[in-house]
Amino acid sequence: MALGEFALIARHFSAAPAGRVALAGGDDCALLDGGDGWQWAVTADMLVEGVHFLPDVDPEALGHKALAVNLSDLAACGAAPRACFLALALPRADEAWLGAFSRGLHALAEAHGCVLAGGDTTRSPGGVTIAITALGEVPRGAALLRSGARVGDDLWVSGHLGDGALGLLMRTGHAPADAAALARLERPQPRVALGRALRGVATSAIDVSDGLAGDLGHVLAASGVGARLDWAAVPRSAALAACDEALQRRCVLAGGDDYELVFTAPPTAREAVSRAGAAAGVAVTRIGTITPASGLLLALPDGATMDIAARAFDHFAP
Amino acid sequence: MALGEFALIARHFSAAPAGRVALAGGDDCALLDGGDGWQWAVTADMLVEGVHFLPDVDPEALGHKALAVNLSDLAACGAAPRACFLALALPRADEAWLGAFSRGLHALAEAHGCVLAGGDTTRSPGGVTIAITALGEVPRGAALLRSGARVGDDLWVSGHLGDGALGLLMRTGHAPADAAALARLERPQPRVALGRALRGVATSAIDVSDGLAGDLGHVLAASGVGARLDWAAVPRSAALAACDEALQRRCVLAGGDDYELVFTAPPTAREAVSRAGAAAGVAVTRIGTITPASGLLLALPDGATMDIAARAFDHFAP
Repeated sequence: MALGEFALIARHFSAAPAGRVALAGGDDCALLDGGDGWQWAVTADMLVEGVHFLPDVDPEALGHKALAVNLSDLAACGAAPRACFLALALPRADEAWLGAFSRGLHALAEAHGCVLAGGDTTRSPGGVTIAITALGEVPRGAALLRSGARVGDDLWVSGHLGDGALGLLMRTGHAPADAAALARLERPQPRVALGRALRGVATSAIDVSDGLAGDLGHVLAASGVGARLDWAAVPRSAALAACDEALQRRCVLAGGDDYELVFTAPPTAREAVSRAGAAAGVAVTRIGTITPASGLLLALPDGATMDIAARAFDHFAP
Repeated sequence: MALGEFALIARHFSAAPAGRVALAGGDDCALLDGGDGWQWAVTADMLVEGVHFLPDVDPEALGHKALAVNLSDLAACGAAPRACFLALALPRADEAWLGAFSRGLHALAEAHGCVLAGGDTTRSPGGVTIAITALGEVPRGAALLRSGARVGDDLWVSGHLGDGALGLLMRTGHAPADAAALARLERPQPRVALGRALRGVATSAIDVSDGLAGDLGHVLAASGVGARLDWAAVPRSAALAACDEALQRRCVLAGGDDYELVFTAPPTAREAVSRAGAAAGVAVTRIGTITPASGLLLALPDGATMDIAARAFDHFAP
C-alpha cells in the first residue's frame, strides 16, 4: 500500500512548537522568533528531476521556478521574502547550465528583495535535485494561516487555475502548445504582493501547488469547516476553457503547479479584498462560500452538486 | 576540466548581505536578524546516496548524521541549535526505513533542543537525497567566523581526526573494522557545547567536514594568514595510529567526515580554551601556530616541512 505524502510527513516528522519556534509544521510556513513585533516565516521545498520537472527543462526557467515555489509559500503566509538557502545536487558541473540556473534564480530573488544567503552544492549520481529554504518577514501574529476560515466566509482565488497542469500536458505532447499556459507552468509568479496586501483582510490562505481540491482541503481540515465551490465562477484561461469539461476539472481540481492563492475573507471585506488585488496587480475572484458541513461540494452550472474527495496530487501514489 | 565544489558555489551563487541578512555565504553559517541582542545562524547541507552515504547504511544512523552535519556547522559558529527543516527525496515510501530515519534524527534534535519545524517529502526516481537547513541562536556579534585568525594565534582541534575517512575505508572493506572508527563515521557528535563555550575565547573556527587541509585552508584564506601544523601533535585514534603513515596523513588531511572543530585562539587564552574543552567534555589539543606567510606548512617529526596544498575533498573531481 502506498502511503500519501502528507500522511508520511505527519506520521514521522511532526513536532510541537517550542522555544523560538512559534509554529512548527502543518501550514505553508513555520514561524520563528524575529525581532520586536515581527517573526520569520520559513518554508522548505524540494524539486526532483523526473518528478517535478523534465530532464530537458530550460535551466533558467528551473532556477526561477525552484525559488518561486518557496516564495509562493511565503506569499500564502503574507510574509515578505528576505533570504533563501539553496542545496543543489547535480550529475556534473556544467558551467552553461549553472549559469542559466543561477540567472533565473537570482532574477526572481532580486525582484522580491530575497538574498541568497548560503547553501550547498554536491554531485549526484542520479538527476538534478534542488532544495530551497526561504525565509520571509511577517508582523507578529499577522501571518495568514490555514486554520482561520470561518463559516460564512467568501472563498477567493487569485489569477486563474489549471494552467500549470495544462502546461505539463502540452510539454509532454498531450495537448497543443499555448505560450501563456507553458509560461504559467515554467515561470510561475508567486503572489507575494497579494499575500502581503491580504494581511488583516483574509482569514486564511494557502497556495495552490497540488490542485485546488487538495489544497483547499487542507484549509478546510485545519479550520474545521467545509466549502461550496461554484464551478462556473472558477477563473480559467482561454486555453483551458477551450478544453473539454473533464480535462478542465482535472487540471483545476487535481492539477497542481498553479501557485495562485486560495483564501477566505468575510463578506464585509469584499471591497478590501478587491483593493488588495488591485494594489498587487492580480485579479481576485470569488469562487464559493465556507459552510458548516465538512467536505467540499462542487456546485455545477446545471444545479447539481458533487462531493469531491479532497485528494491532492500524491507523489507516492501508483 | 572539472570545477571544484567551492569554485562552483562562489562563481554562481554568491550574494552580498542586505537588509535582515548580516552575513551571506563564505562561512559555516549565514547570520540573520533575530531579536534584541541575538542573531539566527543558518546553515544548509545536502546528503546524497552514493556520494555521502552508502545505499545499505543504517537509516537510524543516517537520520542522526544528516542532522549532525548541520549542527556541526552551527557548533563552528558558536550557535545554539533551535530549529531545523528537512527536505527528503525517497525512491519509495518504506515505513520501517522512515521510522528508523526519523528516530535517529529526532533523538539528536531533542538532545540539542532543536525543533523539526517543517519540511518536504517527495518521491525520487534515483536514490535518497536529504537536505536539512538548521537554525541556531548566537549573541549578536559573538559568532565564531573563519576570518578571525591572527598571526601568533595557537591552532587547536577538538577530539581526534581521521576516523571518518578510516571508517569509510572499513565500511567499503579496505581496512579491518573498528567499532569506534565506524561510530565516528556513522554517528558523528557535533561539538555544539564546545562551540558555545569558545565564544569570546576563540578568534576563528570551522568544522572539519572535508579534511583538515581543505577546511583549515578556508580559515587561512578568509583570515589572510598562514599556518604551521605540527604533525606529531595532531590527535589520532588508536585505530588510525596503527595504520601506515601515508594512510594516516590522507585520512587526517584530506579525509573528511570528522566533524571536529578546528579553531584559533591567542596564547593568552590557553587556559580558557582548556576550561571550554573541559566544560564541554571534549579533548582540545594544540596542533600548530598561525603564521604571517600564506599557505599551510606541515612540520614533520624529523624536522622537515612540507607545503601542503589546501585541497578539500572535491565532490566533482574525477
